[in-house]
Amino acid sequence: MKWKRSERLVDMTRHLLEHPHELIPLTFFSERYKAAKSSISEDLTIVKETFEEKGTGKLVTVSGAAGGAKFVPQTTEAEVRDVIALLKDELGHSDRLLPGGYLFMTDLLGNPRIMDRVGKVFASAFADREIDAIMTVATKGIPIAHAIARHLNVPVVVVRRDSKVTEGSTVSINYVSGSTRRIQTMVLSKRSMQSGQKVLITDDFMKAGGTMVGMKNLLEEFGCELAGIAVLVEAVHHEEVLVDNYLSLVKLHGVNEKDRTIELDEGNYFTKGGN
Amino acid sequence: MKWKRSERLVDMTRHLLEHPHELIPLTFFSERYKAAKSSISEDLTIVKETFEEKGTGKLVTVSGAAGGAKFVPQTTEAEVRDVIALLKDELGHSDRLLPGGYLFMTDLLGNPRIMDRVGKVFASAFADREIDAIMTVATKGIPIAHAIARHLNVPVVVVRRDSKVTEGSTVSINYVSGSTRRIQTMVLSKRSMQSGQKVLITDDFMKAGGTMVGMKNLLEEFGCELAGIAVLVEAVHHEEVLVDNYLSLVKLHGVNEKDRTIELDEGNYFTKGGN
Repeated sequence: MKWKRSERLVDMTRHLLEHPHELIPLTFFSERYKAAKSSISEDLTIVKETFEEKGTGKLVTVSGAAGGAKFVPQTTEAEVRDVIALLKDELGHSDRLLPGGYLFMTDLLGNPRIMDRVGKVFASAFADREIDAIMTVATKGIPIAHAIARHLNVPVVVVRRDSKVTEGSTVSINYVSGSTRRIQTMVLSKRSMQSGQKVLITDDFMKAGGTMVGMKNLLEEFGCELAGIAVLVEAVHHEEVLVDNYLSLVKLHGVNEKDRTIELDEGNYFTKGGN
Repeated sequence: MKWKRSERLVDMTRHLLEHPHELIPLTFFSERYKAAKSSISEDLTIVKETFEEKGTGKLVTVSGAAGGAKFVPQTTEAEVRDVIALLKDELGHSDRLLPGGYLFMTDLLGNPRIMDRVGKVFASAFADREIDAIMTVATKGIPIAHAIARHLNVPVVVVRRDSKVTEGSTVSINYVSGSTRRIQTMVLSKRSMQSGQKVLITDDFMKAGGTMVGMKNLLEEFGCELAGIAVLVEAVHHEEVLVDNYLSLVKLHGVNEKDRTIELDEGNYFTKGGN
């Protein structure tokens, strides 16, 4: 059955959105829709212009025999500001204050729509970087890692605090937690990464950056390279942060347990070269 | 600026796919595209027919003043069989065998594309059920839970083995692990759920079902209802499974550590009423 242009556009949009950072050959579309490559090229131009105009992302088209189209998710500055405003608004509620000056964030990390938007924001910032995997530490970083990974089309690697039989043989390192100065352990399955891979590390919260340093050390242990650091919330504190070149969406300046106030600000996303 | 129909179709498709199980008012589209509601209705008919014909999902349209369109992700039987075949193929490699007859599955759970497909398969099966949240236990179930949740537009609730300060006050239960008969603990933040919610529980692996029973007990503790159980891989074993009415994609019949063979079969998805 031959497809109409309008039907092709709907299905093509879906297919491209479901396969970010993947070159889809023109032949794939022309066979699927039983249409000439010239018609497919025209369709792709429409999709490309709409995606780019509305800030959905870039559509990179490659011409020639091995030609095709690749959807690269991108976020507009307005969307990033929207996501940051939403996070600041959500995190600013005084009932999030926990004893010890911690913030309850679990519900945000469990919200798939917010995670998807956060993931797209970070994936856009790192879209031009060569990235082979996203690394995070269990448990809270996992939704963010998966959200970024989906938009970049790369796997997620989860570091654990403890070794488990279902991980097979593992590599383990000790590191010093930045803020509490305690010695902690990180464990990663040997099969998780191959030497030479470029890895983006991410977490929901960063204070002194000890966990990030731990993950960096683990990368070295595997002969991998750090490709970037993405943090949802960074807590501003007196000592120097142990890592640099990280990207954050929100800064937590401080909490006042007595007045029950939470002081939040925009992270370094725009100043550190996101978008 | 006025949009052309072709541009509207591309953007509308994207918007609907990004907002599953959410009623988008006609006014939203007509304002966004500066088009008459009658034109929007015609656009939606094209999207609906293409989605339904190609197995992307249903587009439920509601007419009247409060009218709009809701995208409900659905999977074709062919796609479910494809996902099951992929999982069986992947899981059948002898290098996945770990000491004690365990299977290494971490890489599959870290693959965002596979998780997305698995999530859509389960979300389709439970699309008509009333579901308010997806519950899983840390760590391995989280990617599956989030993938299902994204397609159903509901939050994820993560049960932990240990209590953490960042969770605030928690409810904790003890339960007996089905296969090892050990007493284990489950902890869930009090704020995670409200009484009366209908909850789908999910995990990557189920043997006797002890963890599932633990989660069921936790639901009762919160005054919540079990809406269903989704399991990626169930291990067939001699004792009776402690839960029924679960849906699984793959059955692990057994492993032979000496011959290094893994015996896999299709799960109960089709026999238990998925699709």
